[in-house]
Amino acid sequence: MGTEALARLAEERVDHRFKGLPPDADGLTVGELAAQRRNLFTGGFATPVLALSAERLEHNLRLMETYADRHGLAFAPHGKTSMAPQLFHRQIEHGAWGITLATPHQVWVARAFGIRRIFLANELVDPAALRRLAAELAADPAFRFVCYVDSVRGVELMDAALEGAGGRPVDVVVELGAGEGARTGVRTEAECAAVADAVAATDTLRLVGVAGYEGEIPRADPERVRAWLRRLVALAVDLDKAGRFARAEEVVVSAGGSAWFDAVADVFAEIPELSLPVLRLLRSGAYVSHDDGHYRELTPFNRVPAEGALEPAFRLWAQVVSRPSPDQAFVNAGKRDAAYDLHLPFAQVVRRDGVERPATGIEVTRLSDQHAWLSTGPGADVEVGDWIGLGLSHPCTSFDKWPLIPVAEADGTVVDYIRTFF
Amino acid sequence: MGTEALARLAEERVDHRFKGLPPDADGLTVGELAAQRRNLFTGGFATPVLALSAERLEHNLRLMETYADRHGLAFAPHGKTSMAPQLFHRQIEHGAWGITLATPHQVWVARAFGIRRIFLANELVDPAALRRLAAELAADPAFRFVCYVDSVRGVELMDAALEGAGGRPVDVVVELGAGEGARTGVRTEAECAAVADAVAATDTLRLVGVAGYEGEIPRADPERVRAWLRRLVALAVDLDKAGRFARAEEVVVSAGGSAWFDAVADVFAEIPELSLPVLRLLRSGAYVSHDDGHYRELTPFNRVPAEGALEPAFRLWAQVVSRPSPDQAFVNAGKRDAAYDLHLPFAQVVRRDGVERPATGIEVTRLSDQHAWLSTGPGADVEVGDWIGLGLSHPCTSFDKWPLIPVAEADGTVVDYIRTFF
Repeated sequence: MGTEALARLAEERVDHRFKGLPPDADGLTVGELAAQRRNLFTGGFATPVLALSAERLEHNLRLMETYADRHGLAFAPHGKTSMAPQLFHRQIEHGAWGITLATPHQVWVARAFGIRRIFLANELVDPAALRRLAAELAADPAFRFVCYVDSVRGVELMDAALEGAGGRPVDVVVELGAGEGARTGVRTEAECAAVADAVAATDTLRLVGVAGYEGEIPRADPERVRAWLRRLVALAVDLDKAGRFARAEEVVVSAGGSAWFDAVADVFAEIPELSLPVLRLLRSGAYVSHDDGHYRELTPFNRVPAEGALEPAFRLWAQVVSRPSPDQAFVNAGKRDAAYDLHLPFAQVVRRDGVERPATGIEVTRLSDQHAWLSTGPGADVEVGDWIGLGLSHPCTSFDKWPLIPVAEADGTVVDYIRTFF
Repeated sequence: MGTEALARLAEERVDHRFKGLPPDADGLTVGELAAQRRNLFTGGFATPVLALSAERLEHNLRLMETYADRHGLAFAPHGKTSMAPQLFHRQIEHGAWGITLATPHQVWVARAFGIRRIFLANELVDPAALRRLAAELAADPAFRFVCYVDSVRGVELMDAALEGAGGRPVDVVVELGAGEGARTGVRTEAECAAVADAVAATDTLRLVGVAGYEGEIPRADPERVRAWLRRLVALAVDLDKAGRFARAEEVVVSAGGSAWFDAVADVFAEIPELSLPVLRLLRSGAYVSHDDGHYRELTPFNRVPAEGALEPAFRLWAQVVSRPSPDQAFVNAGKRDAAYDLHLPFAQVVRRDGVERPATGIEVTRLSDQHAWLSTGPGADVEVGDWIGLGLSHPCTSFDKWPLIPVAEADGTVVDYIRTFF
């Protein structure tokens, strides 16, 4: 089922739904365009166009596969980052246990492409979504699904929506909040026990573990992150001792965004033997493209360089359309094309007449909806018509601006197109 | 051609491409779902879901039609705001001359839906896009297209790309920059004359007017805006006197975003008689949905209340999934769903058990990718499962997060679905 749906992506027509593609490719299928192996710079692509590096993408997929293996972690990369079923399948081919997601809509996307194991790292209390979920669980015995609970009321709403739906119970994990003032998640161990009691009182839910997100720990540092992870592990131990996982086949213990997976690996290695096998589940998602800003600064590989390094795989190409003064230039990419929530884009290279050079003296100072404002220093050589290669910060808000993303090899040959669903 | 393409939108299937739709509508066509006239609150829609008010949308369309008529302005609403061909056609039915756009991709979208008059409020120097444009102009004598030029080099690049393409010349207007440090556009009248000379030296381009964007005037106030608009009008007069529009059939004078169209109306009313008829072209786009933040503050109707008032037409519905402490709640909508560049969303109403009340004491303090953080004061009555109705700021970054947007009447009946292409 997944394979057929992926194959149908290659049969989609190149048309007005997709930005950046060569105007003369209109009407081809995406597969036909890919087979032409056009060059990103000479093949008629229009700016702005976001490109993924084929080599860097593959490098990142391999690196996190190796990392999870080395540390005995199961891996459910967060699919909200890319919302690209082709990448979900490549992540699974690279050893991932399944895919983490954030909303029911994202679950339906993954299911449409045959993803069998889904960890919904969020509470889910919508009755319509729960009924559809129950139907999917009933229809497909191979579908494994786990989501968060963090309140007695939430458990009651889930139970009410699922009552009479039949089929298997929905697997849930108690979400432990990352401290006072953090995001979702139960604040105290006593409340966790009450939520576990509420789950046990239903026939529609089954408690299978604990989870949380250390990325929202207030004033996070290695010590605070490790302390919270140990609380999470202790919660799993306590709930296990109290027989709370009696109906489960394994205990899920999950944490791990893209900033602290070294701490997760360390602390999860200390998980003692429980009454059932333990699934130590890491959920980092941003690694797949990595970035040139936020995650370049925060990646745990900065602390453990011997374990490798992720490579930023995105480059946004935009064209200089205006050069109204010696200290200003404007390219035709803006908020519709580039992430702008954590950093502005970074001017990296300039291409003119097939020659690429560093973007010396060029800085992005602001984004309008459809323009980037460039400040150009005295040494900057920028002309109308030049292509500027921009690095981006925050994969999640980069992928979501591009329904179809060319994947280019180092020489510019476009070998594939990644479809996203946001 | 436009009508057929619009009709095909109703034949699209409800599936994983679209957020917020009822899970049990999967597989219906969009037209079939619309015909069911489901209720937004009881018809199985999933959160988060962005809805447009049918009545407010219609009100805004009528109000700007009336406004443009009253002031003798032709209207080319900026289509980048919605990128919704259904709305483009409604804007044209409401008297619009055509549609303004910002990028070639947006032009292809509009052309796919039969839009005949397009004002590209941007420079365009991409050879592949220019060749496609030339082909469209050659193939469709009814296609009227105008774009900006603001540099001699830009003119030369356009000419080089269009040379030998045959067909009609491409109509261009000189963009006058809104001052030192402003966005694109020629900085001085002397440079404008040089750009006009460069256009005149080509066979591929035809100078038909002047344009600019007063929204980027540094430290804009009514006086500065009017002073710049008078510069723009004087430029048109001077170029006309110099015979620069000799090859045109009318002179285009265009300005007007969503913050200063009162000043545009006033100053364009003073345009003296030229050697040709004058097309006074206003381009405001945000009015179509209006908003609860940026444009609520900036709309010119605040200065001319006797001429009417726009109504915010968007409401984003999200569900409370977590209530971890008395002063915190979290809903399942985040940066993927709501504009966050000019203001955070505004909590407006709470719905529980079919009853809607003001969101007293509730404030959105932060957005994660898939969550909004709510601060809840002592008087706030918020529970897991509640729906929160959020007002948004900035139509352009609201539309672009939703490929299909339900249009609901005041009682919640969903009567239509608006498809966007970003």
